Amino acid sequence: MKKKVKLITDPEVIKLMLEDTRRQILKLLRNKEMTISQLSEILGKTPQTIYHHIEKLKEAGLVEVKRTEMKGNLVEKYYGRTADVFYINLYLGDEELRYLARSRLKTKLDVFKALGYEFDEEELLNIMDRLLEKEHSYTAKISAEIEEKEEALKEFSNEDIIHAIDWLTMAELGRDEEAIELLRKLGEILKKE
Amino acid sequence: MKKKVKLITDPEVIKLMLEDTRRQILKLLRNKEMTISQLSEILGKTPQTIYHHIEKLKEAGLVEVKRTEMKGNLVEKYYGRTADVFYINLYLGDEELRYLARSRLKTKLDVFKALGYEFDEEELLNIMDRLLEKEHSYTAKISAEIEEKEEALKEFSNEDIIHAIDWLTMAELGRDEEAIELLRKLGEILKKE
Repeated sequence: MKKKVKLITDPEVIKLMLEDTRRQILKLLRNKEMTISQLSEILGKTPQTIYHHIEKLKEAGLVEVKRTEMKGNLVEKYYGRTADVFYINLYLGDEELRYLARSRLKTKLDVFKALGYEFDEEELLNIMDRLLEKEHSYTAKISAEIEEKEEALKEFSNEDIIHAIDWLTMAELGRDEEAIELLRKLGEILKKE
Repeated sequence: MKKKVKLITDPEVIKLMLEDTRRQILKLLRNKEMTISQLSEILGKTPQTIYHHIEKLKEAGLVEVKRTEMKGNLVEKYYGRTADVFYINLYLGDEELRYLARSRLKTKLDVFKALGYEFDEEELLNIMDRLLEKEHSYTAKISAEIEEKEEALKEFSNEDIIHAIDWLTMAELGRDEEAIELLRKLGEILKKE
């Protein structure tokens, strides 16, 4: 049975999900169950490559065979995701993931600079890092709560559930004075003169 | 030439984008340029239906023919999006869109209730509505700024740009005392006893 929300906390699984082709496969499977040859055609990669990635995703419990169809003498397997939405928490991870989270933030700083913003890099990076850590930990808490109550949410669309998680995370931030202080500081630092 | 970010303000275009099949088409074209028959296979709709939707999306300036290929005697058109990311602002729209924005928020309240939260509906709805209005207006301002500076951002991925827009929106909210007050109120109202 397909779950709506699944919280991923295993650092190894998170790293595996972050690889480009696998991210694209997971994205495509959001819309529809697909065969290896369909994925291979859309992504412009060989079926062998797709097969290799699908095997990794299967081992990690992220995708599974949903149904099979006969096409002539061949059995075609249709793959799908084990949950509609995967939440990952980079901040529960190991050193490597913390490093990754920080280096992703650095790319954001480059975008800000390209747009003409000026700031103290280290200061901004620290504020963003701490805000993200708070956000991730609240989102993890809420999505765990939602995983438990799947049954009560089965009539709602994934989009509604994702937005509800966002709002509940915002509400948690609104009760966290330190988070509000960080938000104020972000506003002070990340602006045009 | 494909833009990275496009801000959509025309209420008619927004309404047209919100229809289910057209949303799915726009989603799929995010990953790759596709033909009508590919879209029809993945979405499980007739090519006639897809054609009809593609025409609407073309007229609205959201998709265009990117290239053609000969397949036997047939010319196959590959469609793609005119921008990688479309930002819509429901709050710049007409009465119908304001109504839609509010009714979408009501669905979120139903999710909160299903999760066991209790609150004054009208009060929560007003706070969420005002927060969203602020968020949309800041996002619109920032994405307009980004549309102008496309050239400076061409090395960055769409994901990086989207996240940068999110952060810049957060920074604007952090400078807006009324927004911070709304966030605090959200935290007070949307919680479990």
